[in-house]
Amino acid sequence: MKQQHVAAEATHINGLDVQAAANTIAAMKADRTLAKFQFRAKNVWISGGENRSTIRDFYGAGREDNSRGKAFEFINGEPPVLLGDNEGANPVEFLLHALAGCVTTTFVLHAMARGISLRELSTVLEGDIDLRGLLGLDDAVSPGYEQIRIRMHVKADCSDEDLDDLLAYTQQHSPVCNTVCRPVPVKIQRVTS
Amino acid sequence: MKQQHVAAEATHINGLDVQAAANTIAAMKADRTLAKFQFRAKNVWISGGENRSTIRDFYGAGREDNSRGKAFEFINGEPPVLLGDNEGANPVEFLLHALAGCVTTTFVLHAMARGISLRELSTVLEGDIDLRGLLGLDDAVSPGYEQIRIRMHVKADCSDEDLDDLLAYTQQHSPVCNTVCRPVPVKIQRVTS
Repeated sequence: MKQQHVAAEATHINGLDVQAAANTIAAMKADRTLAKFQFRAKNVWISGGENRSTIRDFYGAGREDNSRGKAFEFINGEPPVLLGDNEGANPVEFLLHALAGCVTTTFVLHAMARGISLRELSTVLEGDIDLRGLLGLDDAVSPGYEQIRIRMHVKADCSDEDLDDLLAYTQQHSPVCNTVCRPVPVKIQRVTS
Repeated sequence: MKQQHVAAEATHINGLDVQAAANTIAAMKADRTLAKFQFRAKNVWISGGENRSTIRDFYGAGREDNSRGKAFEFINGEPPVLLGDNEGANPVEFLLHALAGCVTTTFVLHAMARGISLRELSTVLEGDIDLRGLLGLDDAVSPGYEQIRIRMHVKADCSDEDLDDLLAYTQQHSPVCNTVCRPVPVKIQRVTS
């Protein structure tokens, strides 16, 4: 994290508590096990392309988190053209939401670390998929996204060069962006209990 | 798609319209451009680790979809230990939701194609992340998930061997699973308009 000129008197930058962030980073530097997180989700199939996830607990900073009074719930669905009834956004759309959010939060976090105050930040995402992959109609077609494009609009109290440098850093350090850009192993196991 | 023994009289299997699915596949076989889809999301930063996506339109099956009367909205947030206030699940958790849903729907779809009726299907996901990657504390640490594990519980009217074969096929053909397992290019561009 590139800490250039965080004003000592600023308690919050971009809505983030500067001292709390510094404390977190110092703690993880002192004890790298505090940086180990495990996130979790549970999903239940409903019918057809409809299923529901619940997300609540996770492990991080050396302990089980108990900050969430109740679980978040999200519904996956499909549009009629994909045999559903728009019960929810579909999984590949949720992936775009995850990617948008992660790039944004990574940008906001490292802007804070550099003392850059953001006024506006928004993104528009597009991802191309050839469904012959999913359907197994052509083994030469990858089932996943062929490419994802993000257009970012940002206004801040710094130069365009500073923003471009921050954006390049963000792309390299966003967890979801890195998970998409890099091959990440997914292990699926059928359990009988 | 492996169509083994779809009963001619079954109009729906696993909640999916068998004839509609066959028609879709036949159309995509006859004209491969119908399989080209583009999914989209728009995201606006709110403050700190909070941001909101709207998802509505997409392109597919040769046209712009207009089946959704209003947009889906989702909030990304962060827990207190990550400087937020649990405004929503966080982006790496939404990625698990997307992955769970996609593996599930791919499994359900190809079960239908094989004439397998499912009674129950649920998954539990865990993903490991070392946040020193996000924070830029160690260049040797990848910012994304190190590994994601999925445990699937399924009850169906077929043998365990059939289920294991279907699960292996699912892992190879799920769009989100493939996007995570394979390096997918993400292009980020800053726009000034």
